Amino acid sequence: MTPDPGAGARSAPARPDKLYHRIGPFEPELGGHIHEVTLAYETWGELDPSGENAVLVVHALTGDSHCAGGRSEAYRRGGWWDAMVGPGRTIDTDRDFVVCSNVLGGCSGSTGPASLDPETEAPYGRRFPIVTIRDMVRAQKRLLDALGVRKLRAVIGGSIGGQQALEWAVEFPGFVERCAPIAANGALGPMGLGMSEIGRRAVMADPDWRGGDYYGTGRAPDKGLAIARMAGMMTYQSAPGQWERFGRRPASRPALYEELGGRFEIESYLHYQGQDLTGRFDANSYLYLTRAMDLYDVGAGYESQREAYSRIEADVLFVGISSDWLFPAAEVRAAAEDARRAGANARYEEIESLAGHDSFLKDWDQLRAVVEPFLND
Amino acid sequence: MTPDPGAGARSAPARPDKLYHRIGPFEPELGGHIHEVTLAYETWGELDPSGENAVLVVHALTGDSHCAGGRSEAYRRGGWWDAMVGPGRTIDTDRDFVVCSNVLGGCSGSTGPASLDPETEAPYGRRFPIVTIRDMVRAQKRLLDALGVRKLRAVIGGSIGGQQALEWAVEFPGFVERCAPIAANGALGPMGLGMSEIGRRAVMADPDWRGGDYYGTGRAPDKGLAIARMAGMMTYQSAPGQWERFGRRPASRPALYEELGGRFEIESYLHYQGQDLTGRFDANSYLYLTRAMDLYDVGAGYESQREAYSRIEADVLFVGISSDWLFPAAEVRAAAEDARRAGANARYEEIESLAGHDSFLKDWDQLRAVVEPFLND
Repeated sequence: MTPDPGAGARSAPARPDKLYHRIGPFEPELGGHIHEVTLAYETWGELDPSGENAVLVVHALTGDSHCAGGRSEAYRRGGWWDAMVGPGRTIDTDRDFVVCSNVLGGCSGSTGPASLDPETEAPYGRRFPIVTIRDMVRAQKRLLDALGVRKLRAVIGGSIGGQQALEWAVEFPGFVERCAPIAANGALGPMGLGMSEIGRRAVMADPDWRGGDYYGTGRAPDKGLAIARMAGMMTYQSAPGQWERFGRRPASRPALYEELGGRFEIESYLHYQGQDLTGRFDANSYLYLTRAMDLYDVGAGYESQREAYSRIEADVLFVGISSDWLFPAAEVRAAAEDARRAGANARYEEIESLAGHDSFLKDWDQLRAVVEPFLND
Repeated sequence: MTPDPGAGARSAPARPDKLYHRIGPFEPELGGHIHEVTLAYETWGELDPSGENAVLVVHALTGDSHCAGGRSEAYRRGGWWDAMVGPGRTIDTDRDFVVCSNVLGGCSGSTGPASLDPETEAPYGRRFPIVTIRDMVRAQKRLLDALGVRKLRAVIGGSIGGQQALEWAVEFPGFVERCAPIAANGALGPMGLGMSEIGRRAVMADPDWRGGDYYGTGRAPDKGLAIARMAGMMTYQSAPGQWERFGRRPASRPALYEELGGRFEIESYLHYQGQDLTGRFDANSYLYLTRAMDLYDVGAGYESQREAYSRIEADVLFVGISSDWLFPAAEVRAAAEDARRAGANARYEEIESLAGHDSFLKDWDQLRAVVEPFLND
C-alpha cells in the first residue's frame, strides 16, 4: 500500500523528537560510580555558529524533556511548557536553540535507578548512587558540550528545575548569561523535607517495593507511589486555592478506593493524581529525585551560601509564587537578597496566584510577564 | 509484710482513675447500630447537689480520658492537660466536677472498631459504623446524665475536641453555659481533608491492615499508621515553627528506617512520632476518628450553618492559633463571626504562637490567659 501524500500526510521530522546522548561514566559528588550515563533530551531551533544562543529549560520532578510540542510515540503528553516555548513565544525557538533533557536519576530515558547496571546486568534499584542537583547540572553540561553549546543565553526551570537553574549559575559561572529559578531557592525548608519524606516512606513501606528490586517482578510499589504523589500534590497547591477549587464538595468521580462515609472532591482529585503517576513514573526515581531536592544546599561544598552566591556571573531572576508553601515566596525573596548581598546581579519578582507551587505550570500570563523582559531585553 | 504507713504511703484513691459506663445500644446518625456502647472516663472534684458545676474536657485525636493526674496502671502518660486542670488551676477541680471521657470510636477504653461485636463475637473492624462528632457528643450526654450532671458549666477542647465542644452547644443548647472550641471551627477545609486522607490511605494500603481485620493476627498496620501519624504531625505544626525547631539540621537520633543520603532532624522527629503512635493507638480508630473530623459540618442536618449557630444558648469562645494550618486562625475567626451573626454570644481570641495547631497542648500561659477569664468570670 502506497501512502497517499495528498491525504494530510506530513514529511517525516528531520530528527526524532527524543534523542539520546551517552555522556560516559559518571562520579556522583557524594560517592559511588555510574558506569555509563545516557541523557534523553530534545532540542528546538538551531544552534548559531557562535554556540551562544542556547537556552536550557529544566523540568520539574515528574516532568521530562518534552517541554514543547505535541504528543508522539516518545511522549504521551504534549509539551509541559508549550505556552512558554515555541516560535515567537517567550522562549523563542525561531531565535534560540532550546534544549531540555531528562535529569540524571530520572526515568524518561536518562540513566536512573531503573537502568541496567552493566556490571550486574540487573537494574540498579537502590544500588544506584545518591545523585545531587549538582550532579544533574554536571551531567547536563556534558550534554551541552557535546551539542556544541558554548554559552547558555539562559537557563530556566521551576521547583527542582529551579534548583538546577540556580546551581548552573553557581557551578558554571562563565557559561551562563541569565538564570531564572522559579519557585525555588538555595535550600528547601523543613516542612518540604517532611512532606517529601512522608512520600518516600509510603513507597518504601509498600511490600511491592522489595528494597528497590521490583523490576521484572510484574509488580511495582504503585500503592506507595500513589500516596507519595498525593502528599506531593498537597505541597504543590495552596489552602485558599483548594478552597476555591475543591472546597468541601462531594466527589464527582467514581471511587478508586474504599469509601469511608463518603468522599470529598479533594480526595477524589488526590486519588486520581496518585494513580495517574503510577502509570508513568518509576518509584525509585521518585525516591532519588525527591532526595536530591531535599539535599540541595547552594552553599554545600563552599564556605558559606554567600561564597556560593558570590561566584555567580549571570543575571539572576528569582521568581516566587505568593501562595507557594513548598518554596514560600518569602524564602525565595530571601534567596534573591542573599545572592544580591553576595554581589550577584539578582532580582526578585513575585507571581500573585492561588495556584500554589504549581503556578509555574499554569499562570502563563503572569509567568510570561515576569520572565519575558528578563530573558529578552 | 506490713506496709509502713509512715514511709510516704498515701491512702488508696477513693475511686480507680479509669472508670467505665455502659450507655447501652447506640444508633449512629449516618446509619448502622452498635449493640452496646461503653465509655471510659475519669472525673475529678465533686458534683454539687445541683448537678450544675460540671466541666467537660474533650480530648484531641489520639488523646484519652486522662486530662489530668500522673501515670498509673491505666494511663502510661501523665494528664495531657495537667497544666490546665487541677486544684486551683484554670479548670479548678476544687470547685468544678471535671469529666473527661474517651470518645466513641476511640481505643482507650470506649467502644470502637477494636471492640467485640456481641453479634459475631469478633472485633468490629470495618464493620463498625461511621460515627460522627454529633454521635460522640450524644454518647457523652448519656454518660453525663448517668453521672447526675444537669448542666455543663463549660465544655472545652482542642481540635476534634473543639469540634465536639462546638457541637455540644448546638446539639444540647440548654445544657451548656460556656463552650470553648480551640483550634477548631464548623468544618475542616480541603487541605485538612487531603492530609487526613493521605494518612488513611497509608493505613489501608498496608497489607497488615487486612481490610480492617488485623486483630488477633499478631500484626497490625504499623507501617501505615506511622506514616499517617507523620502526615498528621505536619498539620499540627507550622513552617516557621519547624524552621525554629528543626531547620535543616541533621538527625540527632539513630535511624529507624533506611537512610537515603543522610537524614534531617525533621525526618527523625517524624519517624519517632510515627513509631510512638503505633504502640498506643489502634489503626482502625485512627481511620474512624479522622473521618469524623473530616465529616463534621456544624450545619449538617440543619437548613444552614446559620440555623445551627442560632440554636446556641451558651457563651462561646473560639480560640484560634496564629500559625495553625489545620484549622487556620482566619477560619476559626470566621466561625466566631458566623456564630455571632446568627445570634450567638460568640467571641474570638487568638494565641500568637509558632507552635501551630498543637499550641493548645503547649502554650500554657497564653492558653490560660484567654481561657481563664472566659471560664471563670
